[in-house]
Amino acid sequence: MFRKRINADNARELFLNSFLPLMEVEVLPIEDCDGRIISENITASMDVPHYRRAAMDGFAVIASETLGAGAGSPVMLKLASSIEKGTCMRVHTGSPMPEGADAVVMMEDTELCADMVQICTQIHPFKNVGEIGEDVRKGERIQDRGRRLRPCDIAVLASLGIRSLKVFRKPLVAIIPTGEELIPRNEKDLKAGEVYETNGLMASMYMKKWGCDVRLLNIVTDSPDLIKEAILSNLDVDMVITSGGTSVGKRDYVPAVVDSIGKLVVHGVGISPGKPTALGLIQGKPVVCMPGYPVAGIVALFYFARSVARKLGNIPEEPDRIIRAVLSEKLSGRTGYKTFARVKLDNGKAIPLATSGAGILSSVSKADGFVILPENVEGLNASEEVEVLLIE
Amino acid sequence: MFRKRINADNARELFLNSFLPLMEVEVLPIEDCDGRIISENITASMDVPHYRRAAMDGFAVIASETLGAGAGSPVMLKLASSIEKGTCMRVHTGSPMPEGADAVVMMEDTELCADMVQICTQIHPFKNVGEIGEDVRKGERIQDRGRRLRPCDIAVLASLGIRSLKVFRKPLVAIIPTGEELIPRNEKDLKAGEVYETNGLMASMYMKKWGCDVRLLNIVTDSPDLIKEAILSNLDVDMVITSGGTSVGKRDYVPAVVDSIGKLVVHGVGISPGKPTALGLIQGKPVVCMPGYPVAGIVALFYFARSVARKLGNIPEEPDRIIRAVLSEKLSGRTGYKTFARVKLDNGKAIPLATSGAGILSSVSKADGFVILPENVEGLNASEEVEVLLIE
Repeated sequence: MFRKRINADNARELFLNSFLPLMEVEVLPIEDCDGRIISENITASMDVPHYRRAAMDGFAVIASETLGAGAGSPVMLKLASSIEKGTCMRVHTGSPMPEGADAVVMMEDTELCADMVQICTQIHPFKNVGEIGEDVRKGERIQDRGRRLRPCDIAVLASLGIRSLKVFRKPLVAIIPTGEELIPRNEKDLKAGEVYETNGLMASMYMKKWGCDVRLLNIVTDSPDLIKEAILSNLDVDMVITSGGTSVGKRDYVPAVVDSIGKLVVHGVGISPGKPTALGLIQGKPVVCMPGYPVAGIVALFYFARSVARKLGNIPEEPDRIIRAVLSEKLSGRTGYKTFARVKLDNGKAIPLATSGAGILSSVSKADGFVILPENVEGLNASEEVEVLLIE
Repeated sequence: MFRKRINADNARELFLNSFLPLMEVEVLPIEDCDGRIISENITASMDVPHYRRAAMDGFAVIASETLGAGAGSPVMLKLASSIEKGTCMRVHTGSPMPEGADAVVMMEDTELCADMVQICTQIHPFKNVGEIGEDVRKGERIQDRGRRLRPCDIAVLASLGIRSLKVFRKPLVAIIPTGEELIPRNEKDLKAGEVYETNGLMASMYMKKWGCDVRLLNIVTDSPDLIKEAILSNLDVDMVITSGGTSVGKRDYVPAVVDSIGKLVVHGVGISPGKPTALGLIQGKPVVCMPGYPVAGIVALFYFARSVARKLGNIPEEPDRIIRAVLSEKLSGRTGYKTFARVKLDNGKAIPLATSGAGILSSVSKADGFVILPENVEGLNASEEVEVLLIE
């Protein structure tokens, strides 16, 4: 028997509150940190640039000497190797400003005649000069603990001479496919009643994508002792995902096993497909039990396992996985359940493919995303705007 | 001198039309194909499931025998090891349907007394039965050449017993940072006029993220011969990215070098920051010359190099990198230029950080995305809705 069916949001909140993020960090060369979560605040130890630089190719001058200069009334300055009254110096973009100069006249506004330079424009002090610290100021906070690093962030850190960073360790996930009907993918010729193992494979690819390291284990048959042994011998990980055996049939042992060696927190969720999802804790480690039906399994991954990975790995919410579209036709949900409807996107339209059919994985593969219907919504009408959670 | 400044869209179209996608494929184990572009159409060689399966735990029956059954008027069937008139058989979710049975009565609607089963509900044929091919039908097209594979797609392919796939080879990109002011990141103590090399590092991380393999080369100083040598000795790659030396100063040799050993297609683009971007072809290989200023460089990466990688790698456009937000204040562009304004996102608002400052990489690191102002738009007003290209 399921426990009392629990609302999906409540189940997730309850579960996420039952364990803590991982606090271990590792030190990585900066070039390996793309996508990782920084575990330290970084304050700039130097100015960038650390010297006054020319921001243009041209001539460094004392700005006040260009007073009144114009195309018809150039000021003449002597090309020299230091700046004093009446002289100027050649500079390139990025090169240090000579001592005493406070502006750069662009090449285009000058003419060189022997060692004399015609300055054909009047400029004000600081024109075309990059000041010390204009990009990053010494002492400025440039990274905050908990941010996901992007290449542009890493480039800024590298410009300060930083060569390695402290980042949070990735969560390690053990994935245990269960079911006596499962056949390893490298074996041939299925008999009636046999299917290739795919949920564990799918879970392992998603968890890697979502920032975890993964240990995909061999198939375990429907035996409480073997399932127990598989879990207990892999509790060096940070999270366990099982697949299959979560319903209430004679061969569904997984939730009871979790409860016997830990604590079953949730069994039976108001989510469709995905009702037979179970969530538990063993020795403080979160355990997500995916239903064996693949669509129910993927919903459990997107809705529960991904959130667990985010919390364990200190991974911030991303804003980029939802897009808006307009329903091409009516969409019905399952009342009392958060319904994950599969839709195809076409030119701003969301075309419903399926709302039920927990066993039809091809309906996910044909889809671009999920429209999630809340529990209290019977259905949505054609032309309603919806948010589509993209299926990565 | 720049060539005539060219409109950014035109420059990109012209450039993308000057080379062809890579057609070489490689064969990979299916578990290594997440994110890769499939280069073959796949048709299902078998049905999934390949046998009629029970979709529930319960008893397989001949549906017509349940006629009139109800809680108060159960039909009695004998538990047997084959199906004939008056018998039923125990089945589990996913197990093969016994010969002769055409429906499954859920466990909840039955009661077992010794070897007799009380059937307490009337069901119709096919109820709780998964038909052969209900997920994937033999002969059905299940993958189209050119699609980017996701874990759910790979799981469907794996359910057919497929163990390896043909995918397009990743483009290999040589990245050549140039500039006499550049210092390798593993050296200490900058003098005036020196900066750490960061553009090449940033480009290499972005190109990897965007589906390429990368060869990041050593810094080349501002010497036409050395730049030429660096490019020519790396033309085994599919694409070259240089950084620096693209403007019109005395030390800017890169566009002329490209033209001397190949063809300079574009030099000077109506994009801000990023005007000194150059684009060329050498022995048919696309060459993107990033300006040395880092913000101009990142714009050249996002606008040009990424598109080149997509075309070379046969990578389809993704729909998920743009989000909508409302401007918190006025935003001004540079007339005649496609302006990449950096914005921070906060609760549906886009807060402008900078529109100019090609040297201020920290303005990118502080930003969540770019608002792209078209050439003919002087500015946008506060409260206007804008599309934000997320900075990954």
